[in-house]
Amino acid sequence: MIETPYLLFLGDAPDMLAAKVAQGIKDWRPEFAVGQFRLEGCKADMGLPDMTLAEAKAAGVKTVVIGVANRGGVISQSWKKVLVEALEEGFDLASGLHNLLRHEEDLAAVAKATGQTLHDVRIPSVQYPIANGVKRTGKRCLAVGTDCSVGKMYTALCMEKEMRERGMKASFRATGQTGILITGGGVPLDAVIADFMAGSIEYLTPDNDADHWDLIEGQGSLYHVSYSGVTLALIHGGQPDALVICHEPTREHMRGLPGYKLPTIGQVRDTALALAKVANPECVVVGISVNTQHMADAEAKAYLANVEAEYGLPATDPFRYGAGKLVDALEAV
Amino acid sequence: MIETPYLLFLGDAPDMLAAKVAQGIKDWRPEFAVGQFRLEGCKADMGLPDMTLAEAKAAGVKTVVIGVANRGGVISQSWKKVLVEALEEGFDLASGLHNLLRHEEDLAAVAKATGQTLHDVRIPSVQYPIANGVKRTGKRCLAVGTDCSVGKMYTALCMEKEMRERGMKASFRATGQTGILITGGGVPLDAVIADFMAGSIEYLTPDNDADHWDLIEGQGSLYHVSYSGVTLALIHGGQPDALVICHEPTREHMRGLPGYKLPTIGQVRDTALALAKVANPECVVVGISVNTQHMADAEAKAYLANVEAEYGLPATDPFRYGAGKLVDALEAV
Repeated sequence: MIETPYLLFLGDAPDMLAAKVAQGIKDWRPEFAVGQFRLEGCKADMGLPDMTLAEAKAAGVKTVVIGVANRGGVISQSWKKVLVEALEEGFDLASGLHNLLRHEEDLAAVAKATGQTLHDVRIPSVQYPIANGVKRTGKRCLAVGTDCSVGKMYTALCMEKEMRERGMKASFRATGQTGILITGGGVPLDAVIADFMAGSIEYLTPDNDADHWDLIEGQGSLYHVSYSGVTLALIHGGQPDALVICHEPTREHMRGLPGYKLPTIGQVRDTALALAKVANPECVVVGISVNTQHMADAEAKAYLANVEAEYGLPATDPFRYGAGKLVDALEAV
Repeated sequence: MIETPYLLFLGDAPDMLAAKVAQGIKDWRPEFAVGQFRLEGCKADMGLPDMTLAEAKAAGVKTVVIGVANRGGVISQSWKKVLVEALEEGFDLASGLHNLLRHEEDLAAVAKATGQTLHDVRIPSVQYPIANGVKRTGKRCLAVGTDCSVGKMYTALCMEKEMRERGMKASFRATGQTGILITGGGVPLDAVIADFMAGSIEYLTPDNDADHWDLIEGQGSLYHVSYSGVTLALIHGGQPDALVICHEPTREHMRGLPGYKLPTIGQVRDTALALAKVANPECVVVGISVNTQHMADAEAKAYLANVEAEYGLPATDPFRYGAGKLVDALEAV
C-alpha cells in the first residue's frame, strides 16, 4: 500500500488531460489530495494549494504522486530535481508511468540511501497465487464492458461513493494503474503473468463481512480480442455476485480494432453472466452503466430510457446522473 | 528456435513417467531424437542408442535436451558435470524446468565462456506484441478442453501427423513447455504477461499459405476458473477456423478444483464457438477428441459412438484410434 496523504506532482503538464491521474485522485479520494506541485509552464491546475516540499511535509504528506503523464510515459529530466529532493526530504514516490522510477539510476540510488520507497504501480509488487476457486465470504460486484475504456472504473468508483454515503460497507478494488494510485493499492492486472491473473483477483478481494461489497474495477472486454483473457480472469477470479454492464453508445468500432463492431449490451449480459456462473452460480446482472459524455442531456436521457425498456434493468450514467439506481439494485441482491 | 537434432538427457530418472518430455520428443519428432544419455541408476529408457557426448557430437547433435523432471523441477547437482561438459563440447542446452538453467551460476558462466545457448522454454524469450486482431491468411485449428490436461496437446500432434501423412500442409504450434521442447519452438503462454497473451498467439500463428493449417495446442479451459483467461486469449489470438473439443470422461471434478464439476461437451462447444466467432465469424466446431486412457476398448468405443450420436460430430480418441475422422472433418472445412 502507498502511504497517504499525497502531494500531487503535476510537473510541466501541457493541459488538464495530461494530469488525469491527479484529477482522479482529487475527484475520488479528496482526503488524500493535500496539495499540488507545479513546475514552470504547467497548464494543469487541480484547484489545490500549491505547496513546496517543506509545506507538504508540514501538512503531513507521506508520498509524492506523479499525477501527470507526458508523451511516451517517460520520467522527464526536468522533473528529476524535485523528485530527488522529495526523497531526500523523506517522501516516498509513486508513479504509474511505463518507464519505472526504479530504473532511473539517480532515483534508485537516492531512494536506497534515504530508505524511501519507489512505488511503480505499473508492475506487480506481489507474487500472486494461482486461483483456487474457493468460495469467499462477502459480496462482490464487477463492472464488465462492451469495450475497453467505456467507464468501468468510474462506474465502480461512483457506486462506492454512493454506497458509502448510504452507510453501506463498500471498497473499490483497483485493477489498473490509475485506480491503484487513487486508492493507494490494487493489482496492475495487465502486467500480471498469465497463470496468476485469476489468483491476483482472489488476492485482491479476500473474505470479508457478509454485508461488505467489493466493487471490482473491470478491464478490457470479453469481445475485445486483444484483452479478453484479462476480462475472463476478472470474472472467474472475482467470482462476482453482481455484474454491471458498461457501455459507450457512440463508439463506431472496438477501441484500437477497426473492423470489429461493438457487441450489444444484451450479448455482453448473456456471455458474461454465463461465464460468471461457472465461479458463482448465484451471480446476477443488476444494471447498466452508460457513458453518455458525448451525448446532450435530452439524448442521453432518452437513450437510458430506451435501454431500461429494452433490457428490463436499471440504466444510468453514474457519473452524470448518480449511481443511485445501480446501488438500489445491489441492495436488492 | 532450438537447434536440432537432440541428445535426450534422462539423468537419473526414477521411472518412465519422469521422462515424459523425452518420451514426447521421441514419439512426435523421432527425427530429432538421435540418442539418449543416462546416468547411473536411471530407470527410464527411450529405446534410443545410449551415447557419450563425443558420440553425440559425431552423430550431428546440436542440443542436449533435459528430458526428465525431478521433484520440484530443480536442476540436480548430479546432472551438472555432464551439462557443463556438454557446453564445453559445443552443445546448447534446453530445459522446461521451473528452475532455470540461466539461474545456475556454473552453467551461466560456462555458457558465456563457450558462447553456447541456454534455452529455458519455461519463460518467453520474445517481447510479444499486443494483439491487433487483423485477419491472417492460412487456416488454424484450436483444441479446446472441458478441463485442463485432457489431451489437447496430443490431439493436435496426432492431427498434425495424420495430415502430414496425407500430404497436407500442417504445423503443430506449441503453447506449453513440453510442446516447445518437442518441436523446438513455441510460446510458453502461461508465463506471458496478461496484456500480451493474445498477441503472442498471433505471433505464433502468422500469415501462411491458404491451404496450410496451424494446429494450435490448447491450454486450460473456459470452465477452469484458474486458467480460463489463458484459454480465451488462445481463442481470440488464434482466430481459429476450426475447433476440436477435447474431453476426458472419467474426471470427477475440474483438475485441482474440488467442488467444480466438468461442463458437458455441448456447453464447451457452444461457449467456445460463440467466443471464437468474435475473432473469426466463419469458425466451426469440427469434431470431438476423447481421452479414453482410463476405459477398456469396448467401453471407449461405446462412449465414442454415443458422443457422435448426441452431438452429430465425429468423435475419436486420436491417440488410440487415429485422428483420421478429425482430419476428414478439417478437410471438409
